[in-house]
Amino acid sequence: MTDWSAADHQFMSRAVTIAWQGLYTTEPNPRVGCVLVKDGKLIAEGYHRKAGEGHAEVNALRRAAAQAKGCTAYVTLEPCSHFGKTPPCANALIDAGVVEVVVGMVDPNPQVSGNGLKKLQQAGIRVRCGLMEAQCRQLNPGFIKRMAEGMPFVRLKMAASLDGRTAMASGESQWITGPLARQDVQRLRARSSAIISGIASIIHDDASLTVREAELGLDNAAEIAQRQPLRVILDSSARMPEQAKLLSLPGRTLIVSCVDAPEFVAANDSVEWLKLPAYNGGIDLQRLLQALASRECNEVLVETGATLAGAFMAAGLVDELVLYQAMKLLGSNARPMFLLPLDKMSEQKQLQLVDSRVLGDDLRLTLIPRQENE
Amino acid sequence: MTDWSAADHQFMSRAVTIAWQGLYTTEPNPRVGCVLVKDGKLIAEGYHRKAGEGHAEVNALRRAAAQAKGCTAYVTLEPCSHFGKTPPCANALIDAGVVEVVVGMVDPNPQVSGNGLKKLQQAGIRVRCGLMEAQCRQLNPGFIKRMAEGMPFVRLKMAASLDGRTAMASGESQWITGPLARQDVQRLRARSSAIISGIASIIHDDASLTVREAELGLDNAAEIAQRQPLRVILDSSARMPEQAKLLSLPGRTLIVSCVDAPEFVAANDSVEWLKLPAYNGGIDLQRLLQALASRECNEVLVETGATLAGAFMAAGLVDELVLYQAMKLLGSNARPMFLLPLDKMSEQKQLQLVDSRVLGDDLRLTLIPRQENE
Repeated sequence: MTDWSAADHQFMSRAVTIAWQGLYTTEPNPRVGCVLVKDGKLIAEGYHRKAGEGHAEVNALRRAAAQAKGCTAYVTLEPCSHFGKTPPCANALIDAGVVEVVVGMVDPNPQVSGNGLKKLQQAGIRVRCGLMEAQCRQLNPGFIKRMAEGMPFVRLKMAASLDGRTAMASGESQWITGPLARQDVQRLRARSSAIISGIASIIHDDASLTVREAELGLDNAAEIAQRQPLRVILDSSARMPEQAKLLSLPGRTLIVSCVDAPEFVAANDSVEWLKLPAYNGGIDLQRLLQALASRECNEVLVETGATLAGAFMAAGLVDELVLYQAMKLLGSNARPMFLLPLDKMSEQKQLQLVDSRVLGDDLRLTLIPRQENE
Repeated sequence: MTDWSAADHQFMSRAVTIAWQGLYTTEPNPRVGCVLVKDGKLIAEGYHRKAGEGHAEVNALRRAAAQAKGCTAYVTLEPCSHFGKTPPCANALIDAGVVEVVVGMVDPNPQVSGNGLKKLQQAGIRVRCGLMEAQCRQLNPGFIKRMAEGMPFVRLKMAASLDGRTAMASGESQWITGPLARQDVQRLRARSSAIISGIASIIHDDASLTVREAELGLDNAAEIAQRQPLRVILDSSARMPEQAKLLSLPGRTLIVSCVDAPEFVAANDSVEWLKLPAYNGGIDLQRLLQALASRECNEVLVETGATLAGAFMAAGLVDELVLYQAMKLLGSNARPMFLLPLDKMSEQKQLQLVDSRVLGDDLRLTLIPRQENE
């Protein structure tokens, strides 16, 4: 095992911090940060901002210019070794005369993992790998899962009362949570490649499912809102109204159904139809997610009612549950969070709390599934 | 308004800290702390430990002995001015030659509030009042409410899953929460004057509702468990089984019913029967709480199922909700936290989070009702 110094941690920590600046904009690329260091001093830094623009390493090298020679580069993710939209970063590091590369984690694609490091080593560059790997992985849960498993990272968002209710029996639900929680949901949308919802939310609420600049509360909100996550509507029996608001909003809508598309779909350039087989009385969710991964979706946000949320949960397809808890009781007639019929305590879905914080009057809990045998 | 110095805060803070040492043992008396200070130096301190034993002031004066002369006394609660089980503390402070008394809060009983301070002033002692009043009030929510309103402080404890369920439909419920949460419940019991439960928990679970020394995880657990809170069982139609476990355990049981007592009750010295009128198909809870206050109950802990918990909540009788949240889902067939039929969002019960902490794998949320018009 490599021994890491305090300076190593300091510089990689900085690389992680700047990588987060790409949170809302790098998609479908990963968020990556790079710091160039010489004689214990930070020479230049860069992060990946947007697909098609420079990678983190190239941005840092450009700023360092001639000073890059003799530097150690700290990079949160293994430098790429292949030609994509931009030339390989490994080559750029070699050409710039970098003498050492410290990497947070290897490329998550098992097919190419290690190739970037090998190329650097073959050029005589010292390579160390695995520094602050957990923090580096946190930057890209979706990209990593898509590369490693061919599936997107599925984040299920729920807003519920303390007694686990999402709406009154009548459907009345606005607003359970406060403005800070709703702002946070906007940010979850903005970091996602796609938002999955059910046709019911279109029919009953005419939901728009967009990222709204004014509600993000971020400096670069205008730029962020320019990229709208793909809106994915599960509509097994093709009930989508032709006049639904979201069909004419900026961004694309993918309607997923078990039947053929109605005529109006062909006339709308921003709407796509995906026919998938039925499974357990609904759309095959596993197949749906595979289809989204093949469209380069990294993180997908599921924003649905109890039925679909329960189906995702029951199928074990949820990677993270973000629960906005309103400090109120809606009572026993109100609608449940999950349609999830379980009979025995042994069937319970166990979760692990990884983060909790106060957002105005609400609590936000972030949870991940626990392995069944824990 | 009085200006408080840093030293004032320091000494009153100490008085509050030592007062908490009586948390589990002073009942039905209040928890009180006293610190004696001369020339900026702490001379002696004392707290009230147990009803019938010395009050905080007397314990501190005894330790200070002759040094008490010329001291400033910091006391969390106005010194008493009447003869109870012990002589009035105001007299003791006067006799000891204390020159100044700083008080956290006045006596909560409006009939005698200020009498202790007046007595001190009449003896030429300088008196200041209201230092760290909020912290001093927190020591004695039950005592204060009983003295001020003739009602106990009602703490409702619930253990539920994230989706707001307390048990499977079959009734299976052990264990929703982990050992640290259960230990915490033991401590809630131990600080309470009484525990209210429904007859259903006796009939179905043969619940004992006791404070168990081994489960408290406290140094003085043996002494604490010697005082068992009054067990109050709501049993409107007299279904209490003669063989119920709790009837033969240490401590007293009060059975509250709308009908007359069965014969076995008279034969059991530790069991009492209280007949109250029915109200809304159950026992009149307001009357019940008044009866408990008249028995010197300060804090009462409600540990019940959805029906009774819902009735307390609907009647607006809950002062504090302590919710142990297990990070799991029990599903939509499982039992709700509250039987609380509400139809409109405007009827929602709003709460305010005053404390949240992690207990092992569980979260403990402490909430107080929000005023309806907030």
